[in-house]
Amino acid sequence: MPRTGRRPGESGSRERILATARAHFARDGYDGATIRGIAASARVDGALVMHFFGSKEHLFVEAMRFPDDPVRFIPSLVGPGVEGLGERLAEFFLEQWEGPNGSQFIALVRSVATNEKAAEMLRGFISREVLARVVAGLGKDVPRERVALAASHLVGVALLRYIIKLEPIASMDRRVLAHEVGPVIQQYFSAKAPARRGGRSQR
Amino acid sequence: MPRTGRRPGESGSRERILATARAHFARDGYDGATIRGIAASARVDGALVMHFFGSKEHLFVEAMRFPDDPVRFIPSLVGPGVEGLGERLAEFFLEQWEGPNGSQFIALVRSVATNEKAAEMLRGFISREVLARVVAGLGKDVPRERVALAASHLVGVALLRYIIKLEPIASMDRRVLAHEVGPVIQQYFSAKAPARRGGRSQR
Repeated sequence: MPRTGRRPGESGSRERILATARAHFARDGYDGATIRGIAASARVDGALVMHFFGSKEHLFVEAMRFPDDPVRFIPSLVGPGVEGLGERLAEFFLEQWEGPNGSQFIALVRSVATNEKAAEMLRGFISREVLARVVAGLGKDVPRERVALAASHLVGVALLRYIIKLEPIASMDRRVLAHEVGPVIQQYFSAKAPARRGGRSQR
Repeated sequence: MPRTGRRPGESGSRERILATARAHFARDGYDGATIRGIAASARVDGALVMHFFGSKEHLFVEAMRFPDDPVRFIPSLVGPGVEGLGERLAEFFLEQWEGPNGSQFIALVRSVATNEKAAEMLRGFISREVLARVVAGLGKDVPRERVALAASHLVGVALLRYIIKLEPIASMDRRVLAHEVGPVIQQYFSAKAPARRGGRSQR
């Protein structure tokens, strides 16, 4: 998007548009959200949204760009080692969903369903930002597929708790939930790989 | 939907519309699919779709009505008891997604994201058809929240494998996957409930 110089106040509008876009994508998904609706909620002209972002897709990409801070925290969760890792990750994950970045996660998951760009972003986010950091922190002790499976459980909990709102998962106390799920995903980190037919490695 | 008598050939058109609707909802989600597009693909007039189903929402409800057969099979999975239940359920679940009813599951999940009716249907389906059957089969041995958490893991695997297509989960052999996930969700069925606050059990 060509931008020639920044006028005073632009930065405020840009941030407000991004925050509004996150809320709209979270509520309506990628397909349902419109530039017009976002502009109206942000109290700016649609042309200003186009001036800043050029297209709905680019606006989406910018709005969904996660702040680095949360994922940067992952190595410190992995650092203390495998013991208790499941519960530390489960707690951290649920905190993120219930914190200020939560609407971004919800927006991504809502958009993923029908939009390949969103699916690609979430795939890339989980793969590069989350799995890679956890795998790197653990060294070669835990195969990547095990980390991905642990992540899949957390993602499933989030889908049922925050989007489908299935009881009793939707209303469980966050700490109780982390304390239930943590030891279960811990198996992926601490258990030996099960023997498979024909004899894959036992590790 | 008032229906006054069934003309010859109607049943074939109705089934064809339903099958086409499933494919469209699976591809485009609830919001993206249109009566017009479904009618065109099914090679019928839009008015015939309205004659049969009255509205997009009602068409969706009819198209998403799961055949009873798969869930009826659950008691026979639970019947043999808790031992090995995790793996039996994981295998059965993945088979369903990769079988002829798979597109209905995908359609529901894609639609859930942005449509409360779809979320309500999926919530009801998991709650009444799946959890209730498993919990009933197990007696009072396993709390409902544990069964729901096991289900959340399976749902998360499906989301990453079939919709987000995250590797390596997307390409794993189905049996290997069931063999990894099964023993992990088994913990929900066989482990004692952990002591909460003021004394976590070590197990």
